[in-house]
Amino acid sequence: MGRLIKKISKTAGLSPGTLVHVGEHRTDKVKITVIDYNEGSFLEKELKSVEESFPFKDSPTVTWLNIDGIQKLDVIEKIGKNYDIHPLVLEDIVNTGQRPKHEDFGKYIFVVLKMLMYDEGKNEVQSEQVSLIVGSNYVISFQEREGDVFSPVRERIRSAKGRIRKENADYLGYSLIDNIVDNYFIILEKLGEKVELIEEGLIADPTPKILKAIHGLKRELISLRKSVWPLREIIQGIEKGESTLVRASTRIYFRDVYDHTIQVIDTVETLRDMVSGMLDIYLSSVSNRMNEVMKVLTIIATIFIPLTFIAGIYGMNFNSDISPWNMPELRWRFGYIAVWGVMAAVVVWMIIFFKRKKWF
Amino acid sequence: MGRLIKKISKTAGLSPGTLVHVGEHRTDKVKITVIDYNEGSFLEKELKSVEESFPFKDSPTVTWLNIDGIQKLDVIEKIGKNYDIHPLVLEDIVNTGQRPKHEDFGKYIFVVLKMLMYDEGKNEVQSEQVSLIVGSNYVISFQEREGDVFSPVRERIRSAKGRIRKENADYLGYSLIDNIVDNYFIILEKLGEKVELIEEGLIADPTPKILKAIHGLKRELISLRKSVWPLREIIQGIEKGESTLVRASTRIYFRDVYDHTIQVIDTVETLRDMVSGMLDIYLSSVSNRMNEVMKVLTIIATIFIPLTFIAGIYGMNFNSDISPWNMPELRWRFGYIAVWGVMAAVVVWMIIFFKRKKWF
Amino acid sequence: MGRLIKKISKTAGLSPGTLVHVGEHRTDKVKITVIDYNEGSFLEKELKSVEESFPFKDSPTVTWLNIDGIQKLDVIEKIGKNYDIHPLVLEDIVNTGQRPKHEDFGKYIFVVLKMLMYDEGKNEVQSEQVSLIVGSNYVISFQEREGDVFSPVRERIRSAKGRIRKENADYLGYSLIDNIVDNYFIILEKLGEKVELIEEGLIADPTPKILKAIHGLKRELISLRKSVWPLREIIQGIEKGESTLVRASTRIYFRDVYDHTIQVIDTVETLRDMVSGMLDIYLSSVSNRMNEVMKVLTIIATIFIPLTFIAGIYGMNFNSDISPWNMPELRWRFGYIAVWGVMAAVVVWMIIFFKRKKWF
Amino acid sequence: MGRLIKKISKTAGLSPGTLVHVGEHRTDKVKITVIDYNEGSFLEKELKSVEESFPFKDSPTVTWLNIDGIQKLDVIEKIGKNYDIHPLVLEDIVNTGQRPKHEDFGKYIFVVLKMLMYDEGKNEVQSEQVSLIVGSNYVISFQEREGDVFSPVRERIRSAKGRIRKENADYLGYSLIDNIVDNYFIILEKLGEKVELIEEGLIADPTPKILKAIHGLKRELISLRKSVWPLREIIQGIEKGESTLVRASTRIYFRDVYDHTIQVIDTVETLRDMVSGMLDIYLSSVSNRMNEVMKVLTIIATIFIPLTFIAGIYGMNFNSDISPWNMPELRWRFGYIAVWGVMAAVVVWMIIFFKRKKWF
Amino acid sequence: MGRLIKKISKTAGLSPGTLVHVGEHRTDKVKITVIDYNEGSFLEKELKSVEESFPFKDSPTVTWLNIDGIQKLDVIEKIGKNYDIHPLVLEDIVNTGQRPKHEDFGKYIFVVLKMLMYDEGKNEVQSEQVSLIVGSNYVISFQEREGDVFSPVRERIRSAKGRIRKENADYLGYSLIDNIVDNYFIILEKLGEKVELIEEGLIADPTPKILKAIHGLKRELISLRKSVWPLREIIQGIEKGESTLVRASTRIYFRDVYDHTIQVIDTVETLRDMVSGMLDIYLSSVSNRMNEVMKVLTIIATIFIPLTFIAGIYGMNFNSDISPWNMPELRWRFGYIAVWGVMAAVVVWMIIFFKRKKWF
Repeated sequence: MGRLIKKISKTAGLSPGTLVHVGEHRTDKVKITVIDYNEGSFLEKELKSVEESFPFKDSPTVTWLNIDGIQKLDVIEKIGKNYDIHPLVLEDIVNTGQRPKHEDFGKYIFVVLKMLMYDEGKNEVQSEQVSLIVGSNYVISFQEREGDVFSPVRERIRSAKGRIRKENADYLGYSLIDNIVDNYFIILEKLGEKVELIEEGLIADPTPKILKAIHGLKRELISLRKSVWPLREIIQGIEKGESTLVRASTRIYFRDVYDHTIQVIDTVETLRDMVSGMLDIYLSSVSNRMNEVMKVLTIIATIFIPLTFIAGIYGMNFNSDISPWNMPELRWRFGYIAVWGVMAAVVVWMIIFFKRKKWF
Repeated sequence: MGRLIKKISKTAGLSPGTLVHVGEHRTDKVKITVIDYNEGSFLEKELKSVEESFPFKDSPTVTWLNIDGIQKLDVIEKIGKNYDIHPLVLEDIVNTGQRPKHEDFGKYIFVVLKMLMYDEGKNEVQSEQVSLIVGSNYVISFQEREGDVFSPVRERIRSAKGRIRKENADYLGYSLIDNIVDNYFIILEKLGEKVELIEEGLIADPTPKILKAIHGLKRELISLRKSVWPLREIIQGIEKGESTLVRASTRIYFRDVYDHTIQVIDTVETLRDMVSGMLDIYLSSVSNRMNEVMKVLTIIATIFIPLTFIAGIYGMNFNSDISPWNMPELRWRFGYIAVWGVMAAVVVWMIIFFKRKKWF
Repeated sequence: MGRLIKKISKTAGLSPGTLVHVGEHRTDKVKITVIDYNEGSFLEKELKSVEESFPFKDSPTVTWLNIDGIQKLDVIEKIGKNYDIHPLVLEDIVNTGQRPKHEDFGKYIFVVLKMLMYDEGKNEVQSEQVSLIVGSNYVISFQEREGDVFSPVRERIRSAKGRIRKENADYLGYSLIDNIVDNYFIILEKLGEKVELIEEGLIADPTPKILKAIHGLKRELISLRKSVWPLREIIQGIEKGESTLVRASTRIYFRDVYDHTIQVIDTVETLRDMVSGMLDIYLSSVSNRMNEVMKVLTIIATIFIPLTFIAGIYGMNFNSDISPWNMPELRWRFGYIAVWGVMAAVVVWMIIFFKRKKWF
Repeated sequence: MGRLIKKISKTAGLSPGTLVHVGEHRTDKVKITVIDYNEGSFLEKELKSVEESFPFKDSPTVTWLNIDGIQKLDVIEKIGKNYDIHPLVLEDIVNTGQRPKHEDFGKYIFVVLKMLMYDEGKNEVQSEQVSLIVGSNYVISFQEREGDVFSPVRERIRSAKGRIRKENADYLGYSLIDNIVDNYFIILEKLGEKVELIEEGLIADPTPKILKAIHGLKRELISLRKSVWPLREIIQGIEKGESTLVRASTRIYFRDVYDHTIQVIDTVETLRDMVSGMLDIYLSSVSNRMNEVMKVLTIIATIFIPLTFIAGIYGMNFNSDISPWNMPELRWRFGYIAVWGVMAAVVVWMIIFFKRKKWF
Repeated sequence: MGRLIKKISKTAGLSPGTLVHVGEHRTDKVKITVIDYNEGSFLEKELKSVEESFPFKDSPTVTWLNIDGIQKLDVIEKIGKNYDIHPLVLEDIVNTGQRPKHEDFGKYIFVVLKMLMYDEGKNEVQSEQVSLIVGSNYVISFQEREGDVFSPVRERIRSAKGRIRKENADYLGYSLIDNIVDNYFIILEKLGEKVELIEEGLIADPTPKILKAIHGLKRELISLRKSVWPLREIIQGIEKGESTLVRASTRIYFRDVYDHTIQVIDTVETLRDMVSGMLDIYLSSVSNRMNEVMKVLTIIATIFIPLTFIAGIYGMNFNSDISPWNMPELRWRFGYIAVWGVMAAVVVWMIIFFKRKKWF
């Protein structure tokens, strides 16, 4: 549950623009890599200090500076100073409780997204904040820890596959966002499988354990939704925005990402509908089972209680010696058998009654 | 369930514009047919290779190129190159997980729709992606497999019935879309009948099987809704759009399709309302039945438990020889009959009690 | 239920503008009447053929052509040709599955509405499609069958009451629409009474029959809502529209109809709220009754089961001859009375227990 | 319930602008009072006939004409003629089933509101229609019956307290509306207290009576909401409207009323939330009680049924004389005591079982 | 509950602009402090009378006048006169039942907010009204009682930390609002912890006490929502507003507050979702428990009732002396053992039955 309500009160009362790392401490090392390319040239290296990246700033080539690990505040501050980033942006980068958003600062566009990963061990969705600063000839990306989510893009740049090497920084920014959104589909498929699995169990046997699983799923979807809904606004903001940093030809690509985003949102809503439908089924099944339990009890009880009463009658100690009115059946030759007959009649009558009520 | 969450993660990480067929492999053959017509002339033939269609591109007549089967990527690519289609459009055509949408690329309009068919065998609604590219003098349609859904339009062109032969490509595009939307009504009627059928069963006997049927219907409607809702936006986008490809006279026809779309959406929502009402009735009925079961149990138990107790009393082995206080009734002449009288009184009293409570 | 999902798939695949009568065949005869008037003159007659009405077209007086019965397609077609009506409009007139709508074709305004009638016999609301074509000096109205719903307007024209004879065709169009909307209030009152009736029964005794009645009402309201909601848009469209056919002075009257429409919608929503509240009460009542049933069972069972056990003890055949430890009470003088004392104590204790639990 | 669906079908079919009094006949007398004032002068008198008020129309002072009782249609008609009011406005004034609304007729603004009063006797909210016509130098107010709701305003004018005597007719109109809205808070407090009262009872003991009270409250809130929601639009319409009758300085005051209206709406919604929360609690409590009842039954039954069975065993008439296998315990010295031991063991075992299940 | 519906009817009927303190009387003393600063100078003092603050009005430095305690109406009136504040603003300041809002009066901006505090003693959220008047070179803040909520801002001004000393009054206004919004995160965390706590209890044991806690939480969230929702509009109104008092550079900071506000609203909605999910779980758990109780009862009853019946049979006093048909088993050598065998068979059969039904 702690995941739904992030601790972001840590910064309350501080001067705005004060850098405080908020979030789990995910990695110790900060890894800085730079990729600098245009159609002809390509350079990739890991930097020892952030200062090494500053010469790239004024080169005409596209520069992609990737920072894995955001807890070293001086690194962030140096980048901020060199690229002239607004202090509030830096504050948002290191505060991982951000809601996904996009802001246009004229010289650069700032985008915060949530990267989702499926933790197979814990069997749950995990989320990590990714911040992007897209300038005229550079993109700076910040991740909470080292990960391989951007490697397909990196690979495409290396191998000069597709259009990426022929395009500007805006296309690189698009590629990174596209990558993150594409990743959501993988998460959604995992959740879809989970839904399918739970559903089968649900039909077979509605146990409290399944209720807990449904509830867990519901919660995961609430959390997912929080990451996904703002995306719509963000991508549309970039596509329809007035920034000169995003060229018309790239906007078509953002429109494509927008379509994917709508699809992601649609799927999340569909999953929510399905999960709430499962809850309904669960409750109906419990109700049905109770009904069945009750029927068994009622059938047994209504058949045997009258029989037991009859047996009880003839267990009474009224002695036929004292009065001829006292249970004359006891003295009949076929009294015992007659009692059994009466009992059988009661049972048959009951069974007909239950048959008519469709209890069998 | 797999139908609700389509596998579209296959393309995650690929360069945008990369053609990958996503979806079920529905047919092996790719069938290419071309219909070329104007008011006076008419030509229809099946092509062996897609290249045969290219000469039609520059003819002043209206050309309708129909592709059944989208898994042969080279065919799609060749068409894309010849008609100068954006790579993202080609990607959307072969990726069958698309949400219905419409995009205006200036020289052509791109429309993705879902064709719905009722599979009588499996007793469920099936969906197929249909993509349309409407240019100034041509329409290209892509279907996942060979089908006869467009045959009424084809027939109208052949026989020169209605206005179709006198109109441009935009009218042909309208006719195809109109055809698809009209088809939805058939699906809705099938579902309406299904609802009616289930409802009758529901009133007769609310079994868990009916619950499953209701749930299945609910799911089908969620899926249907996903296909239908975006239509509204699409048709309005074409009707109110600024594209010069759609003439004012055709826009009136699109307004008509728009009305149909609203009707389709209304009907889907009505069906959803009805299905959720059925769930309510189901739960109430289960509740009612349980109530009835409980009443039977309670009536039987409350009548016989006291009687059995009375019988139990006189089964006790207190001997009247030992003490005159020990069950003197046993020694009365009419003790036994008196006991029966007491029992009858209890029963009568109970029945009056139940009558007052309106349990009968 | 068939009423909620109309069969309109009949036209699927036909060329647009093809006239096909869709709907119940409500009348055999087609009755054509014309009323032609201005402030000074008045003429009313029933026509034998539709052609007789054509001379009125060019007269400066206001002409009201009323067609009862729409299944004779040639009549509709002739009117369409004479008044130059768009084929899609004609198609909408004869297809009774239309959603209420309004379209401005410049030379005339086309309005489709639902007339509602309460069928006292079947005890349900019935609906009929009414189409209006309002031109500069004529109004053409189409009804599914002969009815007296427009007679107040007819009467007002005849007797020159109110402003109607001094006004143009737009005022006549307003009067007809106003008439239809006013009729809704009568339906709403009927439904209001029905709600009241059911509610009383609900409080007295929540039977499954009442559940069915509530459900029927709910359904009737869904259907009503479908007729009523689009009205808002329609009337506003006419009032705020740019058509030169509707004069400013008439727009004030349409604003009045608009207010009535909002009131109708409000009332429908209130009825829906009330009906769904009744469902809640129904479920709570069923729950309450079950609770009461359970309490009776529990009180009887918990009182008598222990007593029966006590009686059972002394029914055991342990003989005190064999061992002095075997049920010495049997040999006590006041053993039997002591047992009754124990039993009475159990009962008293139980009653106190139940009193404390507030079960009585 | 009759209050929720007002009878307004009475006017259906009549010519628009026909005056028909719709609503309860609340008073026989019609009381006409006039207050005429400016900063220096003040005149207040009760008129015998409405004609006496007409000289005030052209005076430069502000004239407030108040009509208590709207069932005398000739009075309304005369005022309508003298002040040149649109017939539809007059119709709305006498038809008390109006939805609150505001219309700008250029020369005057017409406002319909609902005045709410708490009837302590019947313990329910009652509503009365108040209509205001605000002109350049006059305000005409119509109430359904004589009441003291405007007396604070009257008092302020008399005593020249506040700004009212220095302001124009628009400020007087504002003061009257402000008065009505302020009155809503009193109603809301009464309902708030009612909610609190019911809630306490709910926690103490969830009886069907409380369910009825909750339902009554819910209904009262539905009715209240219908009066209150349109207010928002009305006040905003006046504040943001283009009427030259409302001066900029008065608009600030209308903004204040607007804030109050939002607060009223907020409170109504909060009350609705609370009432629906109470319904949830009610159902949960009923469920809980049933659970408790079931536990008692189950504990008693599961303890005593096995004991009774054991007692039953030793009540069987198998004679040990016939076979040594027949119940040898009967012949044991401590057989009886052993049986008690077994029974005690069963009880202890059961109690441990229930303790573990946390049923105590 | 009293907290949800504030008593604000006290002012009903009064002349608008009349100052009446509405709300709890929270403090007796009124504390007036002034902080006057620019980049170079700094002055802070507590004033004895409000008149001492008036000289600061025309100084070029930024003046922050803070009033703790709003029940002394003459202080408020004097400030109003000196700073030329609209009487309705003064009325809003002393009436603590205000909905959060923002109004732009040209010369100053008026903002009303709710400060939230967590009362650890009562274990509930408390709210206090804070009003801000932001002018060109002054900010006046009104609090209901002395509190330390603004001390971080005060500290930052004193120590000249951050940009605050270099900025204008609009930045001071921003800082105060930012402080209040940051405080909400602390409240949300407290509520988040409460949710977590209740949830654990819920899974362990769903008692009515937990139901009450859930309901209390729900109510607290309704109240919180009322404070938080209007914030969105307020901050956006300031950020996007046309006031010349807020400079472009400060608007970026307001955009940051806006993001926080959205996050607060998101979190409140998430908490609401979670609480309503908890209610669902609660009901399901109660249902499950009832089911379990029923199963225990049914298993015990269905096993022992038939056995008791069998024992009852052999307790009947049919004497084998009278008829050889009377219970011949009693005379068999292994009759007793055979009876036990039958009983064992019944039990085994029952257990198999229950196993199959998965009741164990």
